[in-house]
Amino acid sequence: VIDIDDTHDVTHASWVTSANAEETDFPLQNLPLGVFRTPNSAPEIGVAIGDQILSLHRALQLGVLTLPASLAQACRELTLNSLLSRGRPAAAMVRRKVFELLTSDALKQDITVQALVSTKDAEMLLPVTIGDFTDFYTSINHARRGAQLSRPNLPPLYPNFQNLPVAYHGRSSSVTPSGTPCRRPLGQMAPSNASEEAPFRATAKLDFELEVGFYVGPGNLLGEPVSIDSAEDHIFGLCLVNDWSARDIQRWESQPLGPFQSKSFMTSVSPWIVTLEALAPFRHKAVEREENAPPLSRRLSSERHSERGAVDIALKVRVQSEAMRTRGESAAVITETNFAQQYWSIFQMLTHHTSNGCNLRSGDLLASGTVSGAQQQLAGCLFEMTMDGRNSFELPGGEELTYLRDGDEVQLVGRCERKGFRSIGFGVCSGVVQPAIEWL
Amino acid sequence: VIDIDDTHDVTHASWVTSANAEETDFPLQNLPLGVFRTPNSAPEIGVAIGDQILSLHRALQLGVLTLPASLAQACRELTLNSLLSRGRPAAAMVRRKVFELLTSDALKQDITVQALVSTKDAEMLLPVTIGDFTDFYTSINHARRGAQLSRPNLPPLYPNFQNLPVAYHGRSSSVTPSGTPCRRPLGQMAPSNASEEAPFRATAKLDFELEVGFYVGPGNLLGEPVSIDSAEDHIFGLCLVNDWSARDIQRWESQPLGPFQSKSFMTSVSPWIVTLEALAPFRHKAVEREENAPPLSRRLSSERHSERGAVDIALKVRVQSEAMRTRGESAAVITETNFAQQYWSIFQMLTHHTSNGCNLRSGDLLASGTVSGAQQQLAGCLFEMTMDGRNSFELPGGEELTYLRDGDEVQLVGRCERKGFRSIGFGVCSGVVQPAIEWL
Repeated sequence: VIDIDDTHDVTHASWVTSANAEETDFPLQNLPLGVFRTPNSAPEIGVAIGDQILSLHRALQLGVLTLPASLAQACRELTLNSLLSRGRPAAAMVRRKVFELLTSDALKQDITVQALVSTKDAEMLLPVTIGDFTDFYTSINHARRGAQLSRPNLPPLYPNFQNLPVAYHGRSSSVTPSGTPCRRPLGQMAPSNASEEAPFRATAKLDFELEVGFYVGPGNLLGEPVSIDSAEDHIFGLCLVNDWSARDIQRWESQPLGPFQSKSFMTSVSPWIVTLEALAPFRHKAVEREENAPPLSRRLSSERHSERGAVDIALKVRVQSEAMRTRGESAAVITETNFAQQYWSIFQMLTHHTSNGCNLRSGDLLASGTVSGAQQQLAGCLFEMTMDGRNSFELPGGEELTYLRDGDEVQLVGRCERKGFRSIGFGVCSGVVQPAIEWL
Repeated sequence: VIDIDDTHDVTHASWVTSANAEETDFPLQNLPLGVFRTPNSAPEIGVAIGDQILSLHRALQLGVLTLPASLAQACRELTLNSLLSRGRPAAAMVRRKVFELLTSDALKQDITVQALVSTKDAEMLLPVTIGDFTDFYTSINHARRGAQLSRPNLPPLYPNFQNLPVAYHGRSSSVTPSGTPCRRPLGQMAPSNASEEAPFRATAKLDFELEVGFYVGPGNLLGEPVSIDSAEDHIFGLCLVNDWSARDIQRWESQPLGPFQSKSFMTSVSPWIVTLEALAPFRHKAVEREENAPPLSRRLSSERHSERGAVDIALKVRVQSEAMRTRGESAAVITETNFAQQYWSIFQMLTHHTSNGCNLRSGDLLASGTVSGAQQQLAGCLFEMTMDGRNSFELPGGEELTYLRDGDEVQLVGRCERKGFRSIGFGVCSGVVQPAIEWL
């Protein structure tokens, strides 16, 4: 059971002073894990602290971080997969040891010189080698609004939505770390009449999707489902995901097997994994089912899940156009919502995924699907916010935004806040749209 | 350009005498690659020859196989990924060298003793570490019959079918080598009325799907599509795929994002990769488009593709029930078809996959989707053959088959035949259905 302990105590401070600033995403109470690289060196596993990164490799070498040999080995690898496979006890031990290092003034000098890297000198990489990427569809607001736009004459929810967390397999090869530019994809779209050649061109409906992702810690064997109460032993931590989407390609290609090329050109993730340990203070009651909802499947419910199934993460999307960048204006918040209202929880997603015997592997990425608020202007994608491009809204300086233009930068951010606790954040998941290539 | 050369000459014979038997899948003219293990030893890359396997590792160690150092290193690894990434020239060189070894009588004694393993003493493993698995939907017969069964009042083809090769992302973690038993999956199905709890139970509609798969050789970079004429440089070779499916789970879960749990519980592959080099004599004209078909997209057509786009593989599905096994009866052929009639070719599938900039990686698995003949009794799955269980057919001994029963073994086989050439085959892709687990 992952719960609140003294590492969450708001009174603790670190000798890394930037970690004590109110606005940082990475105070001592967070300690997310990631993989970074400095020029001319190999990838290293690090922990974010304020505006610095503690290199676990260097701290081990320096002798200030001591861990059991096999765990130390996992912390020296080029990705987090090995550490993830070791599960909760390993995650908790690393958290505790790093917490001690960063509060021990005696070690400040040595660590600062030899094991701390400034975030601005580091390139963040994908934290894990992702085996499979699965994307869910678990926001009831997104599902309802999508239905209203795509099939206005049919019921506003598919009958399965409230019975199971709907999902599809995504593409893992094109998952990239925050900062990677997003090349506008080419694709085939519906022809204006059936006897004509279907046009193949750059999407005119490039969209973001604001999502929360999570990485699998220890996996499960083929044929062995994971119960809802064991699910948290299999989730290492969370990140933000931008599932870039091309709505015109999607509409044409998706029957009968779902989205493919409209999604597979790229998916961005924030580079830091915020562990379930760090998130313990921000978990609360699972979403209550609507009165007319069908009974919840037994395998997807438990007393503990009802009490602790949801994770409260305030999410925002910011956009900075090329013109805003030129004028030196910072990105503008265009929508905000909260992950706590998601219809299905990350634990239900994981349990459902394994319920047919499907095996998950350490480092697999699962994501929530678009997280949309109840009101249209608080949706998690432009498809909903603009009613598939019918409406637009104004950016600072008067530019009109419907779908994304070349040069637009999209930034997802997430932050957990609760009275009596230090706020923690996810860092940013960003990408700038680049013009399509010329091809054929 | 991969073409017929002297390694395809029907007059050549090997000193491995079983390779010269008419009925073998693995004559000298085939030389497929795979990964095997003998008891208490590490996985090794091997080449099938008759009823034997030539271990490349052992042949290199013995000094009879000589290759450039980096290529030799690739042949010593535990999977074929490295070799695949080296592309056509590497595949052709290994083929040529192995061909020489297996025709050189002088080496017979040494190789037989030190580098040859009998197939019956070897366990076949997955040949590669699969990054992503993509499953297409490219049989027009399958699409039409599926439509007739699932949506009888709508047009028999979705409008996109003849415009692009429809596909969805599959699950790579549960791809298993032939011989792995298939555990009947549990899953949620439609409730009899909307206010009741949706039942969660073992599928009553377990099906196979007869498919042809292919592995990516060298990949492509994110944002860089592969043209139709370059596609064959990115395909290493082919295998058979059984995309086990649970039709009752599929029907309920698939809206709006496509199949997920109904497929992800397991996918079987035949263990040998038959290279494009071996298949050169069996390629011929691409399928002609129907008269009323919309114009073919320019990026998916070329002169060379029209001449050489199809691969002629005769495919069969055999079933052996538990009762037949007990009586010592061999499996019965229940359907047969040919891959040459597939509406979209493997080259079109690969090009389409990359056309939005999606990156493929060495070892990615792409599959054709169900290969179905024009007649219902020659379909590639039971869903079509039995009209979703409405009809049944008789196995030897009088058993009725609709969907798969516990104990049924499904065997896919494929063989290429052409006058003037040695026939080559794919070996078998098999699995026995096991009873569902008890859970919750």
